[in-house]
Amino acid sequence: MEILNISTSKREELIDITGRVKAVIKDVSEGIVFLYVPHTTAALTCNENADPSVKSDIIKKMSSLVPEKDNYKHMEGNSDAHVKTSLFGGGEFFIISGGGLMLGEWQGIYFAEFDGPRKRKVYCSIIKS
Amino acid sequence: MEILNISTSKREELIDITGRVKAVIKDVSEGIVFLYVPHTTAALTCNENADPSVKSDIIKKMSSLVPEKDNYKHMEGNSDAHVKTSLFGGGEFFIISGGGLMLGEWQGIYFAEFDGPRKRKVYCSIIKS
Amino acid sequence: MEILNISTSKREELIDITGRVKAVIKDVSEGIVFLYVPHTTAALTCNENADPSVKSDIIKKMSSLVPEKDNYKHMEGNSDAHVKTSLFGGGEFFIISGGGLMLGEWQGIYFAEFDGPRKRKVYCSIIKS
Repeated sequence: MEILNISTSKREELIDITGRVKAVIKDVSEGIVFLYVPHTTAALTCNENADPSVKSDIIKKMSSLVPEKDNYKHMEGNSDAHVKTSLFGGGEFFIISGGGLMLGEWQGIYFAEFDGPRKRKVYCSIIKS
Repeated sequence: MEILNISTSKREELIDITGRVKAVIKDVSEGIVFLYVPHTTAALTCNENADPSVKSDIIKKMSSLVPEKDNYKHMEGNSDAHVKTSLFGGGEFFIISGGGLMLGEWQGIYFAEFDGPRKRKVYCSIIKS
Repeated sequence: MEILNISTSKREELIDITGRVKAVIKDVSEGIVFLYVPHTTAALTCNENADPSVKSDIIKKMSSLVPEKDNYKHMEGNSDAHVKTSLFGGGEFFIISGGGLMLGEWQGIYFAEFDGPRKRKVYCSIIKS
């Protein structure tokens, strides 16, 4: 298992980790790479890698659906981040074939920070097929 | 890796691909099948295969939560589809055991189109156990 | 494939199954465990295992986003549970390394009941690496 260390710089942001995942799988021909976030206020998502306004639209829409303040009982002030984490999910797999990551043309892999800035980790595990 | 080609006919719809996934795994006894959507405005979901009103309720509720028009910055008019894709997720796995797909009695596997009609693909990869 | 049997006691609740998943993987050194819910009104999620108010905040927020009554067409009165199931997802994987489950310090694995009380199942399948 390999670990990616990620430093986030805002409370909420999507950080492109596509290149780092490609580096992790570089010696694998066929298989699946499993990415896993061992945190409860951050997640993973795969979405558009071209127009950066897609990222800001996603962050903004999620904040309007699940606002930071909303009569939550949890006292740490980050219940919204916990809800968003359950909605996005912290585990994503990607197919490796022909020695490459089988992403779509417009896809990037994003670390979704919902309660930063923090030091974060992503676990990467590969099963060859 | 096998590819399913899917033609969608509406802007938003859930298309049952259960039979096509069963065809992909037909010679496998034990393992996991990984389904992956290489698009940023379409996803996968597993839900009820009996009453079709469940599908229309899901589509309608998602459209009320994430409306097509909502002061988005992205100019292509499909930011709602990007958000829904991150919420549903484009990767789903299913367990193969005893030579069959281990779905629940009421479960169907659906391709979730959020910005159609389009020509779409689903990648299918199997790891035997 | 192993099956966990779960009895839920409320309409909506998050039930910690972390210990049961650890028991399933106890003889495995390296690999991935795949958990799968064969139901259409229940899901899985991974979130905080410390303050129980995080669980109640998640349940409450999901009920305000997707209310039980909301002009749904499906006559069984549980369309909200179907939508929540698609949002959370019924399949989650976890990495096994060094003979243990690679969870974060604050993570627990939860069965998410959205239309209980019911008798439920979680399928568990392991692929060693």
